[in-house]
Amino acid sequence: MRILILGGDGYLGWPTALRFSARGHEVAVVDNFNRRRWVEGAGSNSLTPIADLDTRIATWEELSGKRIAAHVGPIEDGDFIDGVVAEFLPDAVVHYGQQASAPYSMISRQTAVETQYANTIGNLNLLFALRDHVPEAHLVKLGTMGEYGQPNIDIEEGYIEISHKGRSDRLPYPKLPGSLYHCSKVHDSTNIHFACRTWGLRATDLNQGVVYGIETEETVSDERLITRFDYDEMFGTVLNRFCVQAVIGHPLTVYGEGHQTRSFLNIRDTLACVEIAALNPADAGEFRVFNQFTEQFSVMELAELVKEAGAHLGYEVEIRHYDNPRVEKEEHYYNAVNSNLLDLGLEPRLLGEELVESILGILDRYKERAAEGAIDPRTRWNPGRPTAAQA
Amino acid sequence: MRILILGGDGYLGWPTALRFSARGHEVAVVDNFNRRRWVEGAGSNSLTPIADLDTRIATWEELSGKRIAAHVGPIEDGDFIDGVVAEFLPDAVVHYGQQASAPYSMISRQTAVETQYANTIGNLNLLFALRDHVPEAHLVKLGTMGEYGQPNIDIEEGYIEISHKGRSDRLPYPKLPGSLYHCSKVHDSTNIHFACRTWGLRATDLNQGVVYGIETEETVSDERLITRFDYDEMFGTVLNRFCVQAVIGHPLTVYGEGHQTRSFLNIRDTLACVEIAALNPADAGEFRVFNQFTEQFSVMELAELVKEAGAHLGYEVEIRHYDNPRVEKEEHYYNAVNSNLLDLGLEPRLLGEELVESILGILDRYKERAAEGAIDPRTRWNPGRPTAAQA
Repeated sequence: MRILILGGDGYLGWPTALRFSARGHEVAVVDNFNRRRWVEGAGSNSLTPIADLDTRIATWEELSGKRIAAHVGPIEDGDFIDGVVAEFLPDAVVHYGQQASAPYSMISRQTAVETQYANTIGNLNLLFALRDHVPEAHLVKLGTMGEYGQPNIDIEEGYIEISHKGRSDRLPYPKLPGSLYHCSKVHDSTNIHFACRTWGLRATDLNQGVVYGIETEETVSDERLITRFDYDEMFGTVLNRFCVQAVIGHPLTVYGEGHQTRSFLNIRDTLACVEIAALNPADAGEFRVFNQFTEQFSVMELAELVKEAGAHLGYEVEIRHYDNPRVEKEEHYYNAVNSNLLDLGLEPRLLGEELVESILGILDRYKERAAEGAIDPRTRWNPGRPTAAQA
Repeated sequence: MRILILGGDGYLGWPTALRFSARGHEVAVVDNFNRRRWVEGAGSNSLTPIADLDTRIATWEELSGKRIAAHVGPIEDGDFIDGVVAEFLPDAVVHYGQQASAPYSMISRQTAVETQYANTIGNLNLLFALRDHVPEAHLVKLGTMGEYGQPNIDIEEGYIEISHKGRSDRLPYPKLPGSLYHCSKVHDSTNIHFACRTWGLRATDLNQGVVYGIETEETVSDERLITRFDYDEMFGTVLNRFCVQAVIGHPLTVYGEGHQTRSFLNIRDTLACVEIAALNPADAGEFRVFNQFTEQFSVMELAELVKEAGAHLGYEVEIRHYDNPRVEKEEHYYNAVNSNLLDLGLEPRLLGEELVESILGILDRYKERAAEGAIDPRTRWNPGRPTAAQA
């Protein structure tokens, strides 16, 4: 297959490119390096010393003999992404190319607009490019479990059968997104669903849980292939953040009571899920939704797990409760269905102490690189009315 | 009250401004005249000879002694709308300031992006301005019944109680928007709901049906106050289009069989609804949704009504079926709830032959202005793959 990966320089995009390339697919990546810039702008960095994209691609070619094509540019530029799609004529597009940080989207009007513009307009440009050049191609779009929020009923996969006043219909599952970033992903789902209904495009929306982990089958073969690893309050996801905090001796930053429950998966399972989706495309006109996670945990369960794993390796890990900077429920019902990917053959790698210990061991090599000032939570969901001086 | 009206130069915005001003409220309007430009760009015009905004405002002051303030600029410019809100400090904002044509949003990637950018980013800028300067103000946002699409169950007002696997919750009503314009309104609802939950803003989303009619209590007093009246395939709504077609002797352009059922209301009822909403604000943190329509009709029912009313006035009206340029169901269940506004006191003006005859009588005065070339449907929802020459 010819597979185009948007966001192919990122935490998940780069390992995904390697995975498909290793399996013999023809791979091209698109990126504009915004993630690198945003993280630098937040006073942070990738804990892992990532090579630039050219070096990554050259290294992979040296090791595997396989060539990955690169297109550098923003998908918000409709002519750019139209040109890439028209030239490469992909069979599948895996779309990770978005601003993916909830806190970043909540800093200010400017970052909120930047997020919704980059994500929603970029995705809309992509839909037109697919319609006009490869209407049979399969869009594999990364969504997020955070689109659903925490409803008081079980979370189904994208749709729910509703019986109401003696009639019934299968309708899009209602969404309660938890940040303006999550709102942008809901917008994308709405637009993609419309494009499938109206233009007959085929798409799979992977509503992904929180990803953790660092190594994949291909990235371990050479340090120049290592993927990025974010740990700051803005771009680090919770378990990855906790792991870095443990190895550098920073208290684990639990927001509020830590009873918030979310869904999680290993980075290796992300790659397996994306591959399963790509190899089993949606039908023409079908907007298919998979909930892409393997397990559910509360934040405190993760903190306790990291504390115990850390203790075995000789780290003294403190768990500290911070005033919750987010507006979110700390006590809530949470139960999500995830059978679609399991039915297609996903074999989950479950989280345990051993796995956390292995992550801590890898991170220990790079702990001197950590920018400790970027770790404590500062981005407040509701900053209140600005003071006269700020206004 | 201090009432800020976005889109205050438009079909509904201008009469709304007059209405609130006549009732003694302090009114300011915002517009960037994009609607005038878009309609011109489509090779059409307002059938009514509308004055420019300065003349309208001067005329109103001359007649009523009341001054309406005007701010000219695009709300996509966050600093502009922030400045207007900070200066005027409204108690309520009535937001009509959007690209409101479904066909326009479906012409091309460029018009689709323009629509979603203007609507979603403009509205997002407004939410930040409210948060930062007037968090107690009430946002009255014009949504559309078209956000719901045509589900096989009754359409409730914004939310639905769902029982599922032994639990239940009241969740946002699922949406099946019918164009990229309608998608943009769904995006707005998602963002506004989030802002209410997170920042405690108060908002009412008026999911409006298709508006018809031309005169309101205030616009009839002087021809310089007349509101715009669109009739082209892009910016004209169905009943208004049919009325112009009848007086100029053009066949009524029924798309497909014409069994599509939609909800409708008189322009005078739009003003009554917006006033009711403004005088009964939502609670802090509440995202309230009203379905703003008074009756449901199929397209063929409207065509027959116009044909009969026309016959009484001596017009020979032909009903013609055109290949449907839209991707939509022509046979479907449709039943929507609209009790919230009725409960607050709305007294509907129902559609009948007499009313249509009165509209035809007014339009007859201006029929020489009609650009007949802009009437037939050309904008296709699914244009198919471009030919080599177009690509």
